Amino acid sequence: MLNPSVTNWNIPEPTLRRLPWYLAYIKLLKKKGQTHVSSTQIAKKINVSSTQIAKDLSYVNVSGKTRVGYEIAVLIEVLEKFLGFTSQHRAVVLGVGNLGGALLSDSGLEQYGLKIFAGFDVNEHIIGTKIKDIPIYDIAEFAKQKKKLNADIGILTVPPENAQEIADFLILNGIRAIWNFTPFRIRVPEHIVLQNTSLYAHLAVMFNRLSVSSSSKDIK
Amino acid sequence: MLNPSVTNWNIPEPTLRRLPWYLAYIKLLKKKGQTHVSSTQIAKKINVSSTQIAKDLSYVNVSGKTRVGYEIAVLIEVLEKFLGFTSQHRAVVLGVGNLGGALLSDSGLEQYGLKIFAGFDVNEHIIGTKIKDIPIYDIAEFAKQKKKLNADIGILTVPPENAQEIADFLILNGIRAIWNFTPFRIRVPEHIVLQNTSLYAHLAVMFNRLSVSSSSKDIK
Repeated sequence: MLNPSVTNWNIPEPTLRRLPWYLAYIKLLKKKGQTHVSSTQIAKKINVSSTQIAKDLSYVNVSGKTRVGYEIAVLIEVLEKFLGFTSQHRAVVLGVGNLGGALLSDSGLEQYGLKIFAGFDVNEHIIGTKIKDIPIYDIAEFAKQKKKLNADIGILTVPPENAQEIADFLILNGIRAIWNFTPFRIRVPEHIVLQNTSLYAHLAVMFNRLSVSSSSKDIK
Repeated sequence: MLNPSVTNWNIPEPTLRRLPWYLAYIKLLKKKGQTHVSSTQIAKKINVSSTQIAKDLSYVNVSGKTRVGYEIAVLIEVLEKFLGFTSQHRAVVLGVGNLGGALLSDSGLEQYGLKIFAGFDVNEHIIGTKIKDIPIYDIAEFAKQKKKLNADIGILTVPPENAQEIADFLILNGIRAIWNFTPFRIRVPEHIVLQNTSLYAHLAVMFNRLSVSSSSKDIK
């Protein structure tokens, strides 16, 4: 029998990226004591058309009622489960420098279903230490520890010049998803899940738009 | 006279997001001792067409030579300057919880032109303390400190239910750019620069793709 979640293949990435916005908003409504919400109400706050919202929510197994809309408590539960925020996904961090160390300290990710079990580095000053009780191992021990930790996700915070090499190494050792925080555009085989979070690209956009708005102010 | 950087208005956001990838790659080539690079060579590694790369680089004031391509040392310098990574942009962090605290610890952002001068929170246990020498103030002192710190950028890491309120407050107090790390979709006036970095949206996509690839494996 087919697993029903296989239909998940069809969810477009933009939909998956928007669903957490709706979730954050309806959680706020719940806090305010509201019990039901319509896609029109969400649309007004989130800047996405109500048609798009209804379409996005149709991928999730939840249906609104005419006039009253979606039941907020149910929608929150279903969305959190659907997005994987209520399961535990096992991850390790590769490269415990500034950003890697910061991610190890950020236990907030756990509330969204990501649990980090170890960090790996080559720097002997930090190998053997811990950050918030998470051990940091020598990357040479990766294969051995990977088996114990049973982690699927590798968080990549190595220097950009090592990003591709370490990504290849992770995949060779059975990592199935890579969350790439380096500014390097790594390439992975098709069956590997890859998400790029480029803080630096966001900085570049922000700095550019800021400098432009300063310049236009100078002209006035 | 028009400031030449005003033409920056015209740079599409996708171009600005891709330029840091090229930069990371050519920095790697420089480390390997290479002196020149063509858009075709970048294209092979970065998975962007060479036509697009040449077009993206045409926004930056640098031109390649026939046969030899771009001079790497020059291209790195021009790109870093163009992207704002060599200037200092002054920022403050709003909400020194897990993620906010992690960003305060991440001095790596400084190498990309972002310097964080203070954190603000409402939690009296952390007000008055420091993280990596960066002071954490009571948010009630924001207006006063903002003048001293002269920061343009507000990094938003408050709980999602406070995101809009704090964003409005920042704008009222003269913040010109907001880097929103909360899953809440805040709305800002047109003249305010906004970048959303939703770690949770990336997690949602990653978890979904992982669960799908597990399911399809189960079927085999």
